[in-house]
Amino acid sequence: MTKRLAFLGPPGTFSEQAALLCDPQAQLLSFATVAAVVAAVASGMADEGVMAVENSLEGSVTDTLDVLIHESALLIRREVVLPIEHCLLAKPGTTADQVETIYSHPQALGQCRRFLERCFPKARLEASLSTTVAVEQMMQQEKAAAVATARAAELYGVRVLASGVQDNQNNETRFVLVAPADSAPTGRDKTSFAFSVAQDRPGSLVDALKEFSDREINLTKIESRPTKQELGRYVFLVDLEGHRTDPKVAEALEKVKAQAYFFKVFGSYPRFEATGAAR
Amino acid sequence: MTKRLAFLGPPGTFSEQAALLCDPQAQLLSFATVAAVVAAVASGMADEGVMAVENSLEGSVTDTLDVLIHESALLIRREVVLPIEHCLLAKPGTTADQVETIYSHPQALGQCRRFLERCFPKARLEASLSTTVAVEQMMQQEKAAAVATARAAELYGVRVLASGVQDNQNNETRFVLVAPADSAPTGRDKTSFAFSVAQDRPGSLVDALKEFSDREINLTKIESRPTKQELGRYVFLVDLEGHRTDPKVAEALEKVKAQAYFFKVFGSYPRFEATGAAR
Repeated sequence: MTKRLAFLGPPGTFSEQAALLCDPQAQLLSFATVAAVVAAVASGMADEGVMAVENSLEGSVTDTLDVLIHESALLIRREVVLPIEHCLLAKPGTTADQVETIYSHPQALGQCRRFLERCFPKARLEASLSTTVAVEQMMQQEKAAAVATARAAELYGVRVLASGVQDNQNNETRFVLVAPADSAPTGRDKTSFAFSVAQDRPGSLVDALKEFSDREINLTKIESRPTKQELGRYVFLVDLEGHRTDPKVAEALEKVKAQAYFFKVFGSYPRFEATGAAR
Repeated sequence: MTKRLAFLGPPGTFSEQAALLCDPQAQLLSFATVAAVVAAVASGMADEGVMAVENSLEGSVTDTLDVLIHESALLIRREVVLPIEHCLLAKPGTTADQVETIYSHPQALGQCRRFLERCFPKARLEASLSTTVAVEQMMQQEKAAAVATARAAELYGVRVLASGVQDNQNNETRFVLVAPADSAPTGRDKTSFAFSVAQDRPGSLVDALKEFSDREINLTKIESRPTKQELGRYVFLVDLEGHRTDPKVAEALEKVKAQAYFFKVFGSYPRFEATGAAR
């Protein structure tokens, strides 16, 4: 049966590219918010959902983390890492020297700032709600270009004037696939979880982290997120090497849970291994 | 002598409000990037610079943290916390029921999503490069509004149709004031610093944090930032209670420095205390 895969639309964004990387045969369902992606999977409208969690330049994708922490009972069953390649797109017939206006989401414009300043010093930069909306705005104008994905060029039948125009070539985004259940152990797994501890006592965070170092469990990521109640109150998001059913991991998680006033496991899943020689 | 205070422009943004909160008498100098604010202070063009570091909903301001980590030799000498209040602005004569298009930076539109959906379900949302640019775009249109600051309404002579339209009322931003020197001890101080430790060894982060808990030094913030080289490599940003010249704090910082392959103190400064009854 064809898998139904929910993603944050519109089509032509990096999220759609990640969904295609997860399963090129899947039926792709586009939703307007991360919360809607989760609701689609939770309600059975989709089998799995794809969500960006972290970019190597920008850091965490706060919308996704907030939904994972507060709004979702789904589990992470897979991760994929997608290289982010921005392209400069224009209508057929528009050449680079004619470009007077360049559209994109402010974040994409920011990631290509040096390229745009050097090659289009006189162009006017205009903000768009997404890179796909930027392509639509560009198509309605003369002498315009848009910073968007190669996939958007395909979908809209426009030209790629330049590709790989991001200033930093180490630009990649980590996506997770969420579903009603996580993955069985493979021997090369990761587990993601979140917790909060009292912050008015020195050492409460250290005590929690020691549960892992005492058992020789390596942490591959630690992030802190404000709790949305007050500056200075945090939820810690941790990835560790191992599966939540490994006895040592299970024991450490139980110990942390006992000390935490908030605790949630997001699931265990195989570590992403790039197949190409590029990494 | 009047203090010259650099901030991230344009005028009418929350950064300008923070600068005015720091010193209502200062001569304000507007710059286009955080890096330019730092360069202005480093070169003597301004005496101090104001930069947003953290928002209670969105998390860290990544541009500022990256500049503090990689590009600045300045020190933090003060912090201020500003409540973020979004307003809906329109030209004199435009009433709420006429509004068909609403402009703002995508982040501001996101923070007011529930309000906009409820009160303007049919309005078209348009992205802008900043809340101030949104006001300028709104002024060139009929039947338009902009989400921006009360200060922008003053500067541009437009009307406030609604104020406090952000969905979450616990929305505040922490700004720091950077200068060539930090502050002398006051007895109620904070110190900000950053460090990296080897991440392939379980416990290296715990060992560093234990230097503080062993000395009963409380950490008020821990953030991790990707190093921009690869996903999964982090710089930790920490705020602690105390001044860097306190003997216990100085000793702990020295111990962490000895274990870290990157280490940088951003300065010591008095803890922000709200003066009003609002907090």
